[in-house]
Amino acid sequence: MTIDSPDFRVAVADLEGFIARILHRAGADAASAQAVTRALVTASRMGTDSHGLRLLPHYIQALQGGRINGRPKMQFSQRLPATGYLDADDGLGHLAGYTAMAHAADMAEKVGLGAVAVGNSSHFGAAGCYALAAAERGLIGMAFCNSDPFVLLHEGRSPFHGTNPIAFAAPVNGQAPYLLDMATSSVPWNRVQQYGAIGRELPDQVAADAAGRVTRTPAEVSALLPLGGSDFGFKGAGLGGMVEILSSTLSGMLNGFRLLPMGGPDMATPRGVGHFFLAMNPDAFNGNASFETCLREYLEDLRAQPANEGAEVLAPGDREWRCLGMRDAKGIPLDRANQAAYAALAEQFDVEPLTPVR
Amino acid sequence: MTIDSPDFRVAVADLEGFIARILHRAGADAASAQAVTRALVTASRMGTDSHGLRLLPHYIQALQGGRINGRPKMQFSQRLPATGYLDADDGLGHLAGYTAMAHAADMAEKVGLGAVAVGNSSHFGAAGCYALAAAERGLIGMAFCNSDPFVLLHEGRSPFHGTNPIAFAAPVNGQAPYLLDMATSSVPWNRVQQYGAIGRELPDQVAADAAGRVTRTPAEVSALLPLGGSDFGFKGAGLGGMVEILSSTLSGMLNGFRLLPMGGPDMATPRGVGHFFLAMNPDAFNGNASFETCLREYLEDLRAQPANEGAEVLAPGDREWRCLGMRDAKGIPLDRANQAAYAALAEQFDVEPLTPVR
Repeated sequence: MTIDSPDFRVAVADLEGFIARILHRAGADAASAQAVTRALVTASRMGTDSHGLRLLPHYIQALQGGRINGRPKMQFSQRLPATGYLDADDGLGHLAGYTAMAHAADMAEKVGLGAVAVGNSSHFGAAGCYALAAAERGLIGMAFCNSDPFVLLHEGRSPFHGTNPIAFAAPVNGQAPYLLDMATSSVPWNRVQQYGAIGRELPDQVAADAAGRVTRTPAEVSALLPLGGSDFGFKGAGLGGMVEILSSTLSGMLNGFRLLPMGGPDMATPRGVGHFFLAMNPDAFNGNASFETCLREYLEDLRAQPANEGAEVLAPGDREWRCLGMRDAKGIPLDRANQAAYAALAEQFDVEPLTPVR
Repeated sequence: MTIDSPDFRVAVADLEGFIARILHRAGADAASAQAVTRALVTASRMGTDSHGLRLLPHYIQALQGGRINGRPKMQFSQRLPATGYLDADDGLGHLAGYTAMAHAADMAEKVGLGAVAVGNSSHFGAAGCYALAAAERGLIGMAFCNSDPFVLLHEGRSPFHGTNPIAFAAPVNGQAPYLLDMATSSVPWNRVQQYGAIGRELPDQVAADAAGRVTRTPAEVSALLPLGGSDFGFKGAGLGGMVEILSSTLSGMLNGFRLLPMGGPDMATPRGVGHFFLAMNPDAFNGNASFETCLREYLEDLRAQPANEGAEVLAPGDREWRCLGMRDAKGIPLDRANQAAYAALAEQFDVEPLTPVR
């Protein structure tokens, strides 16, 4: 969901500098600041505004409250040649994510596959960032994360899973990667808030009231339905469960149902979020064919399919890469709320405020 | 979708013996017959009737037509310590599946993870069977397979992906495994046929007519919608694409859009179906906690959630394990169509027909 505000766009480099400086002033070390900046700006460039620059004020609050450790001593333990565990020392999830995926990718280059479970972590922004980091090294990457409960189980009446995302990226010969990054609910929680703010009805079968009844009225919503809605939500809930098992059970963390809420009010206690990262070496399977070339051929078939009138058939990531090209050229838009939040951060930390591109 | 026919139930051992004998008479070698029997009977015991005993006549037809090789020389090539490729020599996909997952599991026990891409294979029945085979060895198992096109892309007007399933299984301390086995469409193709036969309307947002318009009338259906329907089908289509990439691109096979149709009429030409199997050693991540015990605790939280009136909150697999207990005790039901098909096979191959349990 992209809300472009044509009157206030900032250059990518300016945004990077601003975010990094604010994080530095708020006590984050260089590696943490760099990882958060990379993740938030990547998401904002791709148009994933729910997981982009909007999140900076939240992370600052969590750093200042003590929930998140801005100077973590993250420790990687290799277990077997293809597996390991990263203790994130309650640091920023973005540093945990890039660090863990780098270890997974190292293993995949050596032994074909690599996976890292991460414990004692925190919110990591958009899962796609870490899958993408593997694809940028010529590998298939997958990333998973649990979160506090927002989503009903199938036939359930109270939230149990988070929006538990699945991200999958794969390198394509001469093109931007295939990039799927999806919540296992139909919509993210902040879609309900956005629609409520502008008085818009939600799509059918995406949310429910406190009694578990489907509702399209944002003000009545107390939980999201899993992908598939009332009839087929067992699929979304099953995928959400898979993400939960990989993220929290493998890492020995509490399951999402027992996590402290991301939104607070407790900003002092570490939450113990778990992640899971998998990297696969696509040249370590079929000995003959070139994976990246075959994937390009598959995408050519896909994009050539006839579309509904007025619509397009797109591969996962196509919309994002198009947005990235546009925003790199014209700047990244800040809506009114983000303009205000960023101005407040600039004042609070005595940092030069962002100025729009002309 | 379970259609129990209370008047004709057969004992599990009788069904196993019958299927194995028919396959033997139709020219399958012992390993192939054993693998098909194991997969079909497992699916039928669990109530996955769309992928159980119903498929035997189809496989016999493909064996007799020459599409499937009943005496394959499958060849496994280890690539790196965690990866390999299985050339299935146009044999039965069930043998390819169990063989490939066994190799993946061997690697996972040694190096933590193992994955095998399979090429030159055929329909393998229910994906869950192979994920389950990993869980029975104390590992997390995942299985994927492509198929000929039945499912629209998001905003697409012609079928592109198959129902490309995702299966995920994990061992639980003292209980049957967690088992998710789902198509990336909302319903399988044979659901449309079943509903057509009994004059029932389909659920909304699961199928479309030849113009790509959503329809609930089985006779009008020409393709399935991806999971998520008109609004959120980009998620189901993205997952279907992930399955396609893992199954056909990694194995160097044609993508599903270019596969010969499963249903014929050509029963002589091998189809070149691809599969992908992944095994993960759950004890090779977090050094402290016991995965199987933590998974049981997560499932206790899950099953304790409040349910909608008249409904139950179940974990993936709960319904299947319950059905398995019932069918192991009372026998596996054959509906009229399967009774007739099995009687015809008995006559064609001069095998003692199945008799119902009393």
